[in-house]
Amino acid sequence: MSTTHRFSIRTRLAYRIEQEGWLLLNMAAVKTASQRILTESVSNSRGIKFREHVVPEGTTRFHGLAAPAGGLEVFYEAEVERDISPARGSRNPPESPLVDLPSGVVRYLYPSRYCESDKLVRLAAKSFGDLAPGHERVAGICNWIHTNIDYQPGITDAHTSAVECLTLRAGVCRDFAHLGITFCRALGIPARYGCAYAYGLQQPDFHAFFEVWLGDRWWCYDPTRLAPQYGFIRVGSGHDAADTSVATMSASVQFESMEIQVEKLSAGRVHYANGPVGF
Amino acid sequence: MSTTHRFSIRTRLAYRIEQEGWLLLNMAAVKTASQRILTESVSNSRGIKFREHVVPEGTTRFHGLAAPAGGLEVFYEAEVERDISPARGSRNPPESPLVDLPSGVVRYLYPSRYCESDKLVRLAAKSFGDLAPGHERVAGICNWIHTNIDYQPGITDAHTSAVECLTLRAGVCRDFAHLGITFCRALGIPARYGCAYAYGLQQPDFHAFFEVWLGDRWWCYDPTRLAPQYGFIRVGSGHDAADTSVATMSASVQFESMEIQVEKLSAGRVHYANGPVGF
Amino acid sequence: MSTTHRFSIRTRLAYRIEQEGWLLLNMAAVKTASQRILTESVSNSRGIKFREHVVPEGTTRFHGLAAPAGGLEVFYEAEVERDISPARGSRNPPESPLVDLPSGVVRYLYPSRYCESDKLVRLAAKSFGDLAPGHERVAGICNWIHTNIDYQPGITDAHTSAVECLTLRAGVCRDFAHLGITFCRALGIPARYGCAYAYGLQQPDFHAFFEVWLGDRWWCYDPTRLAPQYGFIRVGSGHDAADTSVATMSASVQFESMEIQVEKLSAGRVHYANGPVGF
Amino acid sequence: MSTTHRFSIRTRLAYRIEQEGWLLLNMAAVKTASQRILTESVSNSRGIKFREHVVPEGTTRFHGLAAPAGGLEVFYEAEVERDISPARGSRNPPESPLVDLPSGVVRYLYPSRYCESDKLVRLAAKSFGDLAPGHERVAGICNWIHTNIDYQPGITDAHTSAVECLTLRAGVCRDFAHLGITFCRALGIPARYGCAYAYGLQQPDFHAFFEVWLGDRWWCYDPTRLAPQYGFIRVGSGHDAADTSVATMSASVQFESMEIQVEKLSAGRVHYANGPVGF
Repeated sequence: MSTTHRFSIRTRLAYRIEQEGWLLLNMAAVKTASQRILTESVSNSRGIKFREHVVPEGTTRFHGLAAPAGGLEVFYEAEVERDISPARGSRNPPESPLVDLPSGVVRYLYPSRYCESDKLVRLAAKSFGDLAPGHERVAGICNWIHTNIDYQPGITDAHTSAVECLTLRAGVCRDFAHLGITFCRALGIPARYGCAYAYGLQQPDFHAFFEVWLGDRWWCYDPTRLAPQYGFIRVGSGHDAADTSVATMSASVQFESMEIQVEKLSAGRVHYANGPVGF
Repeated sequence: MSTTHRFSIRTRLAYRIEQEGWLLLNMAAVKTASQRILTESVSNSRGIKFREHVVPEGTTRFHGLAAPAGGLEVFYEAEVERDISPARGSRNPPESPLVDLPSGVVRYLYPSRYCESDKLVRLAAKSFGDLAPGHERVAGICNWIHTNIDYQPGITDAHTSAVECLTLRAGVCRDFAHLGITFCRALGIPARYGCAYAYGLQQPDFHAFFEVWLGDRWWCYDPTRLAPQYGFIRVGSGHDAADTSVATMSASVQFESMEIQVEKLSAGRVHYANGPVGF
Repeated sequence: MSTTHRFSIRTRLAYRIEQEGWLLLNMAAVKTASQRILTESVSNSRGIKFREHVVPEGTTRFHGLAAPAGGLEVFYEAEVERDISPARGSRNPPESPLVDLPSGVVRYLYPSRYCESDKLVRLAAKSFGDLAPGHERVAGICNWIHTNIDYQPGITDAHTSAVECLTLRAGVCRDFAHLGITFCRALGIPARYGCAYAYGLQQPDFHAFFEVWLGDRWWCYDPTRLAPQYGFIRVGSGHDAADTSVATMSASVQFESMEIQVEKLSAGRVHYANGPVGF
Repeated sequence: MSTTHRFSIRTRLAYRIEQEGWLLLNMAAVKTASQRILTESVSNSRGIKFREHVVPEGTTRFHGLAAPAGGLEVFYEAEVERDISPARGSRNPPESPLVDLPSGVVRYLYPSRYCESDKLVRLAAKSFGDLAPGHERVAGICNWIHTNIDYQPGITDAHTSAVECLTLRAGVCRDFAHLGITFCRALGIPARYGCAYAYGLQQPDFHAFFEVWLGDRWWCYDPTRLAPQYGFIRVGSGHDAADTSVATMSASVQFESMEIQVEKLSAGRVHYANGPVGF
């Protein structure tokens, strides 16, 4: 038995373009079995046509455009319906033997740009090796991150990796997710990065969380605990922030400002629990 | 007009397993439009059943197995037929505007574990920004690597990244490929890692090269120049060595030794040129 | 035959102290054979007594104080006389065989926090190994840095090392000096960091340069070329910015603002040349 | 009341010199108030004259030589007498306010090549900030290192830093000392590196420990616990392994082998305790 919630999203991204350049934006909600786009509009202040890319796995949608010099505002509006499926009986989904993983999941075992799991194999084993495999171990990882890493905007930047965050002991949601992913992969648990709009997030912004493959599906974890997971509207999944960044753009394009509004349209009863929430 | 070549491969990989563990091997030739497996056998000394994973894009095939303590030998034998399509007229394929890239190619714009292209944007622009876009620029990158990086086995290891190789000024085929990929991505050119058997390679081993997306397809580059590109039989493609490593295994499994034999069965005329060779 | 110049310095450093803490300031001109303090005053807005430390080699003077919570302004005023000894005949001082170095110079052969010369041995040899030993080689290093590294305030921070600046291809005077030192040490040439007031520097600030041991003395180099070397008034020398930073302080102390004024009092004829200038 | 012990040392270092090169060796016991050289001989198989350097602080003695191509054996033999002064009443020497440190100690507050204390300020405060200042805090650091870092020869190399060892969770005596130094400096406690012959060390080799300035002197700590501290015969002190390495040499010189013998000549009663042991 799952619950359904509806949310509205309004996003405005502003850029200054010094000379003709291009942008690849990752700001549209993805279409999955449990997340349906009811209405949607993507537009911009210059009337430029977007080209949409959906990566083969369907986990990220990009909107690309080439733009002439000048200002550029991009607008995204959508109503999205999400099914929430709380831990349905299996309150402690187990880790899968590696040889039993689906072929599309294997790639999330490997280190990536900001998640150098190959460097933390011994540390992860010493820190979390004795916890019960499965949800309990991942929850232990999230607790450790929440307790030991200070949430502090401005202290890290777009180049900061999980190992750097681990020694710095501070970061933002992006770094918290990277560190969770890195510990999991170092322990042989597939983990991937999620970027989302988050209902209830103070100072509205894109939010980052991570997912691990336990049992037969991805489960969502957020060591920041800054917003309820039922209110995440996913815009992208990937190895880490490298392939789910909000904007990839030419050197001649400068980010200027951003406004995000996320509202809950439904009043459905929330089955929010401390256990993992899949979506 | 393309040429076809046939090769035979014999591989033997030996491991010591301290206690029950698992291996995920990436040693089988992939099946693509231009690379056909004529005969193939995958076996091991313990009679354990393999599970085969083909990643969704078809770019890598894994053979996984769980093994009890003891020695383990894995054998791979195959006959493979490859079409070689030299640069057919378009001797200088151009770079594609980013908004025109196929959706499955976009991911190869982003930095990955061993290819931190976000760190070299300025250096790549200063070094290669004035070269003509397309093949000429990528050839310039390969020339620079070949001239400035010493090929020296043993000086780098499985954790070495492109930026580290760049400052060290030495490495092996893996590092040469990582560096080529990193420069390309830093310049906005999609690039990916290739792992292959290589006919004619002295001291037979798995070989690494890289591919860039120019015009409407992937083109192969090898800054090591250690073996002719028509004799590469591909076993995997990916972001970098992280997702195409020959073996991923439990901590309890130790690599012991490897033997590889690659022979050319056909005597076909070789259209080998200095320009890019696609496959 | 040397020339003498006199300069006046006025410095104001402001800090906010959250709770009782301490500061160790490196802002006073050092006293050397060629740099004489004519008048000097060190004071602060709270009337706290300073403790002065002169490191054993006399290359740095620290003024330490413990301060209660509140604001703190520190004032330094001095008149300093400097002898300038242009390259006096030996326009190309040679590199010294290592076994002939004075005992106090040996330490400047080794890598330090921000000058990881052990990582660039091969790169330095490839890049500068063919230049004539001595001043010509060091001048070649400075030319390379000036040409290839962008001077760009704000792009690096207090943790940036020479290897990071080398791959980033941008930095400020601190990074330029670190990189020069690192190349020199990688080639077996003793090199050390200098921090100075600099007459003629636009946007007055502490300035960084480096020195190398050639022949029988230290020679000054500044790859930024932002101010004439005859107008440097030295406040500290050391391995790198780690041991010559302007301020070391408790976590509870925040830097707020700084004002520096350097004026030339004498009108002496300037023997400024492109060659090395010792002091 | 202190105890005195006498030790004999016999060292043989062998090098192969491809073409004329030089070596700077740091293998001779230093002469301090509490460590006296009774007899000593430094010689080599080629009859080459050494040049001795004693760094200004007296903390390291180098023996330099230029050598022609060929093999080279270096021999060091000495009898050394050491005073051991156990914790004499003050079992818990306190940390000194920074403004009260002797001028020669200030430099050991700063980060160095292998001890990037600027990167671990927050982590050190979180991990050890609540321990009682002074010996108790440093002992807590040593306990943490001993418990959490695996002593494992071969896993690190001459380029490994404290931050790398911290994430790797393994290393050798050099790395253990670097990590101890780094935590201390990050907490504002002066700390330096020590290199020594160590009586009782299994598999005789040069040993590394560290010292911290507490109260009015340096105190010795060794988180490896591999040999008793009363049996350390010091050959060098410095910022870290960068300026106390056993041998600095031209690229044309290769290390071949080493033999070390340390014997105790006296039978004096040993006042060895868990507390800090100064020397």
